Amino acid sequence: MNASLKNTTPSHRSGALRTGLEARLIARPKGLPAPGDFEIAEVAVPDPTPGQVVVRNMFMSLDPGMLMLIAGEPGLPMPRYEVGEVMYGDAIGEVVASADPSLGEGDLVMHRLGWREYAVARAGLFRRVDRDAYPTPSTYLGFGLVAYVGLMDAAELRPGDTVFVSSAAGATGSMAGQIARLKGAARVIGSAGSRAKAAYLTEKLGFDAAFDYHDGPIADRLREAAPEGIDVYFDNVGGDQLRAAIEVMNPHGRIAVCGALNRQSKAGPDEGPGDLLGVLGKRLTIRGFTLSDHLERAPEFGAQFRSWLREGSIVHDETVIDGLANAPQALLDLVKGAYTGKTVVRLGS
Amino acid sequence: MNASLKNTTPSHRSGALRTGLEARLIARPKGLPAPGDFEIAEVAVPDPTPGQVVVRNMFMSLDPGMLMLIAGEPGLPMPRYEVGEVMYGDAIGEVVASADPSLGEGDLVMHRLGWREYAVARAGLFRRVDRDAYPTPSTYLGFGLVAYVGLMDAAELRPGDTVFVSSAAGATGSMAGQIARLKGAARVIGSAGSRAKAAYLTEKLGFDAAFDYHDGPIADRLREAAPEGIDVYFDNVGGDQLRAAIEVMNPHGRIAVCGALNRQSKAGPDEGPGDLLGVLGKRLTIRGFTLSDHLERAPEFGAQFRSWLREGSIVHDETVIDGLANAPQALLDLVKGAYTGKTVVRLGS
Repeated sequence: MNASLKNTTPSHRSGALRTGLEARLIARPKGLPAPGDFEIAEVAVPDPTPGQVVVRNMFMSLDPGMLMLIAGEPGLPMPRYEVGEVMYGDAIGEVVASADPSLGEGDLVMHRLGWREYAVARAGLFRRVDRDAYPTPSTYLGFGLVAYVGLMDAAELRPGDTVFVSSAAGATGSMAGQIARLKGAARVIGSAGSRAKAAYLTEKLGFDAAFDYHDGPIADRLREAAPEGIDVYFDNVGGDQLRAAIEVMNPHGRIAVCGALNRQSKAGPDEGPGDLLGVLGKRLTIRGFTLSDHLERAPEFGAQFRSWLREGSIVHDETVIDGLANAPQALLDLVKGAYTGKTVVRLGS
Repeated sequence: MNASLKNTTPSHRSGALRTGLEARLIARPKGLPAPGDFEIAEVAVPDPTPGQVVVRNMFMSLDPGMLMLIAGEPGLPMPRYEVGEVMYGDAIGEVVASADPSLGEGDLVMHRLGWREYAVARAGLFRRVDRDAYPTPSTYLGFGLVAYVGLMDAAELRPGDTVFVSSAAGATGSMAGQIARLKGAARVIGSAGSRAKAAYLTEKLGFDAAFDYHDGPIADRLREAAPEGIDVYFDNVGGDQLRAAIEVMNPHGRIAVCGALNRQSKAGPDEGPGDLLGVLGKRLTIRGFTLSDHLERAPEFGAQFRSWLREGSIVHDETVIDGLANAPQALLDLVKGAYTGKTVVRLGS
């Protein structure tokens, strides 16, 4: 089932006028969304008014957290998606028309106006980035910075730590495990949703151990993988993996809560960590974090990330989905665990 | 029902030989203990061997956490009570015989050898304290230091914070609320198990607002008491109060997990905080702590506490239970919420 396609381009359009697709939420689903909750519309792209630029988006990010913005429950760290409006998300594109001196045609820019082929807005919403920093512009959409601040700030990673990462084959998890190792973790363990993904973690990403979380009691798998216990848990999922991690954690262990995929993929509450007797007994810290509180880490991380990529000491793996019309279904597939590494949508033709 | 009384004093005892009561765990209960799980025995008190002292205990502490040591599940921060052995716990007493130069008869000492009228052990296990620091020696058994390190270290209290304390009429909670105010909290809210205790919090202990947690949805009571949200939650109970606190917390709020009374009084798991979407969305920190990791705070706290007592700016309220034989029942009553303030047992006659 596809998102509905709608042409709202005015019929009097001239040959010179650009048109582009955009994706709107058209219903707030109860539970998980379906592709029919989205509409893909072709719209005219206006010329920039003074102070504005027009950006042709090349790639946009797909992120499991978008499900929370669709569900729109209270307590979100960011504005929810409104019904009838174009959704937002990280994107990278190229300036194709500028009515502001700060940006010129051909500039590569990052911004939050994803889910559309063209973004027209004031120049201040776009951040120019270096075209030569990475082999492909989509690399800018990677979640390495999220993983980095989660490890450094929320989990207070220390050299010698044993680190467990759930959803470790995903965009954030694959970065978290590799960055933990590069920042001095003694041992890095990952969980994923299949044996093939677990093998990918140890064989391609350099994890010391990995398991399929479907394979028997998670706490047992963790104890096998971390006989001396876990010091840091980078939590992307919650639920039973979180409870198992608490069980196997060492005193003064730290849990960085980055996502709640268990909850997000069910669109209903999960059981969470259970009672906090283990948290009390072992004096654990559980800390939720979002990137927006730690953006000052971006330059320091960017420099390290580029150097790791150059040395070949980190693998930045991407799944590329073609076309905005395929993005809603891809978001659902992403949350169900269909992809490894970072998932991006290539926009335009 | 009383704990069983047993006289194991040797029949050949001389008039000069001291005897004293001690309390032993004689069965590990499934679920909550009953007084029959304890035995009170009269035993001979030996003379000190070289390096030892004999201490006549004056007061011992009763602490809900003792239920965890009785249940003896894995993951405790302290050794569990072993069946057949005398239990341990904080106590204060007077040296009555010494075979070590470091302590002399008449010295007032604190130690961990509670649940007995006489403690005979090497001098290094006893810490001499100032007899004139407080009006009564039992004050040394107060839980102010626990509350202080929970606020300062686990919750990172900041001036202007709104602080919520559960089980606020109890030993730790009553200190936590008052210390929070004295250390700069803008607003202090407490919950307790009856309206009378809630009134005690606002009328006697200077809390800004208080409620009986039985009175309707806890989150609603919290929102009324803290219209601008909560910054710090000092958690003594877990369960539904913890979930309500997360719901009403402000971004970057901090939760110090000091106890799990909900769990302890049921002797079975409670639901805990539920899924961590709120922790993630609001970037909350949940941190378990125990006093043993923060003993370096003792001198600084002691100086402040004595000064607050002198000024009359803090109320140190005690419930005194008479006699070791009544201690097991009193521990159960304590966990059920029968007492306010700190509960101590007066030992000996």
